[in-house]
Amino acid sequence: MMRRQNFRPPRPNHNRSGSTAVATPQKTDRLESLIEKATGLLTTSRYTSSRQNLRIIPMGGVEEVGENMTALEFGDDIIVIDMGLAFPDDTMPGIDYIIPDTKWLEENKRRIRGVIITHGHLDHIGAVPYILPKLGDPPVYTMALTAAFVKKRLEEFSLLGRSKINTITKDDVLALGNFKLRFFRVNHSIPDSVGICITTPVGQVIYVTDWKFDHTPVDGKATEFDKIARFGAEGILLLMSDSTNAIKPGYCASEREIGLTIDRTFNEIKGRVIFANFSTSISRIQQFFDAAAKYNRKVIVTGRSMVNNIEIALSLGYLKIQPKIIIKSEQAKKFPDNQIAILTTGAQGEDAAGLARIARGDHKTVKIKKGDTTIVSASPIPGNERAISAMLSNLTRLGSHVIYNKTLDIHTSGHAHQEELKLMMALTKPKFFMPIHGEHHMIVAHGELAKTMGIPETNIFSLDNGQILELNSAKEAKVTEDPKISSGYVFIDGLGIGDVGEVVIRDRQVMAQDGMFVIIMTLDRRNGKLINQPDIISRGFIYMKGNDDLIREVKHEVRKLVESKGKEKLEPNWAYLRNIVRDEIGEYLYQKTERRPMVLPVVIEI
Amino acid sequence: MMRRQNFRPPRPNHNRSGSTAVATPQKTDRLESLIEKATGLLTTSRYTSSRQNLRIIPMGGVEEVGENMTALEFGDDIIVIDMGLAFPDDTMPGIDYIIPDTKWLEENKRRIRGVIITHGHLDHIGAVPYILPKLGDPPVYTMALTAAFVKKRLEEFSLLGRSKINTITKDDVLALGNFKLRFFRVNHSIPDSVGICITTPVGQVIYVTDWKFDHTPVDGKATEFDKIARFGAEGILLLMSDSTNAIKPGYCASEREIGLTIDRTFNEIKGRVIFANFSTSISRIQQFFDAAAKYNRKVIVTGRSMVNNIEIALSLGYLKIQPKIIIKSEQAKKFPDNQIAILTTGAQGEDAAGLARIARGDHKTVKIKKGDTTIVSASPIPGNERAISAMLSNLTRLGSHVIYNKTLDIHTSGHAHQEELKLMMALTKPKFFMPIHGEHHMIVAHGELAKTMGIPETNIFSLDNGQILELNSAKEAKVTEDPKISSGYVFIDGLGIGDVGEVVIRDRQVMAQDGMFVIIMTLDRRNGKLINQPDIISRGFIYMKGNDDLIREVKHEVRKLVESKGKEKLEPNWAYLRNIVRDEIGEYLYQKTERRPMVLPVVIEI
Repeated sequence: MMRRQNFRPPRPNHNRSGSTAVATPQKTDRLESLIEKATGLLTTSRYTSSRQNLRIIPMGGVEEVGENMTALEFGDDIIVIDMGLAFPDDTMPGIDYIIPDTKWLEENKRRIRGVIITHGHLDHIGAVPYILPKLGDPPVYTMALTAAFVKKRLEEFSLLGRSKINTITKDDVLALGNFKLRFFRVNHSIPDSVGICITTPVGQVIYVTDWKFDHTPVDGKATEFDKIARFGAEGILLLMSDSTNAIKPGYCASEREIGLTIDRTFNEIKGRVIFANFSTSISRIQQFFDAAAKYNRKVIVTGRSMVNNIEIALSLGYLKIQPKIIIKSEQAKKFPDNQIAILTTGAQGEDAAGLARIARGDHKTVKIKKGDTTIVSASPIPGNERAISAMLSNLTRLGSHVIYNKTLDIHTSGHAHQEELKLMMALTKPKFFMPIHGEHHMIVAHGELAKTMGIPETNIFSLDNGQILELNSAKEAKVTEDPKISSGYVFIDGLGIGDVGEVVIRDRQVMAQDGMFVIIMTLDRRNGKLINQPDIISRGFIYMKGNDDLIREVKHEVRKLVESKGKEKLEPNWAYLRNIVRDEIGEYLYQKTERRPMVLPVVIEI
Repeated sequence: MMRRQNFRPPRPNHNRSGSTAVATPQKTDRLESLIEKATGLLTTSRYTSSRQNLRIIPMGGVEEVGENMTALEFGDDIIVIDMGLAFPDDTMPGIDYIIPDTKWLEENKRRIRGVIITHGHLDHIGAVPYILPKLGDPPVYTMALTAAFVKKRLEEFSLLGRSKINTITKDDVLALGNFKLRFFRVNHSIPDSVGICITTPVGQVIYVTDWKFDHTPVDGKATEFDKIARFGAEGILLLMSDSTNAIKPGYCASEREIGLTIDRTFNEIKGRVIFANFSTSISRIQQFFDAAAKYNRKVIVTGRSMVNNIEIALSLGYLKIQPKIIIKSEQAKKFPDNQIAILTTGAQGEDAAGLARIARGDHKTVKIKKGDTTIVSASPIPGNERAISAMLSNLTRLGSHVIYNKTLDIHTSGHAHQEELKLMMALTKPKFFMPIHGEHHMIVAHGELAKTMGIPETNIFSLDNGQILELNSAKEAKVTEDPKISSGYVFIDGLGIGDVGEVVIRDRQVMAQDGMFVIIMTLDRRNGKLINQPDIISRGFIYMKGNDDLIREVKHEVRKLVESKGKEKLEPNWAYLRNIVRDEIGEYLYQKTERRPMVLPVVIEI
């Protein structure tokens, strides 16, 4: 799966001001730098700061929601925290996932002492199978449930057995070169989420992402406030914390409150329940099973990831369910509708997931019938709203009642709101603060919050991916002025990795907008004259059958251009003629239609 | 602009269950039916119901948010209410707008007695320039502000002076054939919004869309509860009402409350204010100007539609502002930053609108500087979330503070929530109820609400676009079992109308996903042998330069196929060979890449 990575694009210019944000690759390894200097290879590298400083490099997750990954470097040692993926937005047609650019880490892979994964969500583990092999399969350290999810993912990519996946407990102390790591449990929508206190030669760093303070968590395992307070008392040089909900006032509701809503809902529903949820939200799944057991419903589980994750969570004791509550769909007919609940994936309206297939009527075992109630237990990830809305309409059309986050409090976030974020700062009392995990405006909002907590503006660092925060033994911090390390997006599409670059994406965008228009000119190589009538192949531009006139006129225009310019074969491959045809016909089509299809002139020489 | 309407596509199958939802066109005009029967043309028409029944036909707006349009028919008379457009979703790449299919109305245009427009938003007036001319430019009846907006829109399309635009007042009584229309003022985010009480020979219908009950409206003009109650007392056969917020409990906040937030915000902001808003939300604009005046700020207005609409609203007295408060951008440097406020369009993150250009740094007069505060005074229309979020990040990156609906109550809806919807039912006491204006699941939720108000389920009608509700003099109602009238989407892209159909959209989708792959085979017409090496033109599929091997292999495969199949010119244009090449190479590319570009084989005969 990771054989074709020869092309690694610069980050596409997402409405960013003017310039195309291209990071120049560079070396941080002094030895390599010296060698390169000696051999005259060094052209763009300028970053040569002290090896006695701690360097923090967000590789992803500070300019977007997703693809979370951070590197810490001190002396000869590098550790990496998380390896997540992000989902493409609508400027990236056809792309399955985005992962961080890891060129710099690849160049420094012999110095990587370990990879720590904070929890088992895809935006933290999803890139593991794509990136680990590129880094020489370094060892991974993580909690039991996360370890099981990581292994499952590696297994799906036939990569199991390469990197060693070490299971840690929250009370372990990990020594990785110059870094000593201690952990503390936090609450999130998946069990075994941990924050990290990293002791380095210049001071202590707390890295805590995807957390909330839930005083009544479903699994009874609360955040370890005592540990956080103790780390705070020891002195924290830098806090890195989750910005997802930095714009939201107050506190995030406890997961247990959602359980009460689920319970009440189950109590009222007469027909079948179809419950859609993230397959990794084990606590929500627990509450679903609790409600099903209480109201005497058997459960049918559909969706590969749901089945897998429930198996893993059950085997590790993270999920406790009534014996024999799960039945196969064939057994459903033995029970009346009010004794059936169906658990499925697809709460985000994803095309291929269970609920979307149910809503389209093409799920192989679940068919909606009148009297069903579908509960979508999630809030939309931005960008998914219309797909979810269409899915809800399809479900109602098939006869299901629908319950979702706008109609009922059927979801709570796993990410801390403002008051919780402030409490984290109060407990850890950091000198410096780096908001992570969010789009830039969320990061900035989190920085504003830190100011209200008394952290001076000069001590707050909102970095871009690939920028480097350097902290020294005098307890000073600054963003280095050296160029960023390579930090573009790597697009994943089908089997290829990184071979869909900016050019390919831009072409897809153009063709999606106004289609394409291929003009084939078959020329006599001796005199540059057309042998045949020009051929036109067009798709996605206009309805060809109804527009014979336009096509005829275009062919006439092409003929004229070839007759006046065709003789001048000034450049190889008729580049001059092709450019003229592209420009003139492009303009002609725009005049006639106000559309700009991609015009592709082709010369066939006979 | 409306010259090329020869292609009118069936509605694309938006994740709908299985079948391609194609409405068969039909006639409702008995005379025409008879003529067609006589001439043997009638194949699909079966709808022949009584001319003495009232027929209500939603042409758009009951399966989506947008493209609102409804027809009422009795005897020889048809009236049309609203002519809106909808914005495309991400399954419709490159499309500017969607408008309703009006084939049935075009066929019956001589019977159209008038078009009534309820208010001046684009989802109610946007299709006017596209549709009015197709219907023989029937007269339009609407309130003063709406009339001005409609005229402006017609003017932009050089259509002014064709349809007569009649200005009515809310107390006028309009007689249009068998229909008598009376109006009542409602509150909405634009002044001059009215509901309609339509007296017909079989009973009275209330049509009320885009309304809320605002007891403290900014313009001091409250909903005419007395009129609504009086119509209710007269007896209402059918209520048609707005479902946009049928899923939202409670009441919609008063626009005036937003004014308090705007005032408080202005009070706190030290630098410049950039305020983004819909150009039609005159009440919000009023409150913006009030705050600007109170805090001694001059106003720069940018954006063509904002300038136009403010001019219209000022000239008609719907907007009252301090003399000389508006300045030109060149004059800004005469004032300190805390005396400047900038009013712009683009609150939805629209690419071409003012705020997006400001955020990209390419607005011609407004450049963000540190200390600015941008207020986005709108909530995202579903589908726009990611664009807005990216825009906010760009604004913070340029140094602006950002305030939007998640951080502060800077927006309220113009659409009634559940308690208001129930009050409307209580006031009008309709026998029958038809929820309109919303996606199907919102329509269904509104129907559920009607049940709680005691309207029997059998009296609630949730129609699809093009379905017909028939009400007779015995006060009975039913959805006719005849096929729907033609009700697909008409896509508008550039200059053409309706010439971008389902085929073109599907091609764009395919190319957006995995690109395209043109294979040009130049064959000797006498023996079917390749004269040249096959040529490959591909875009949006893979990065061509890095994948020479794949291209070479494909050419080899094509060569083999031509050699084995090329001689068999069984069909004209080498259709057989082209099909084989399309299938085999398509499969070959999928095996190698797991992508499915659009494969287009071309044969050039020499």
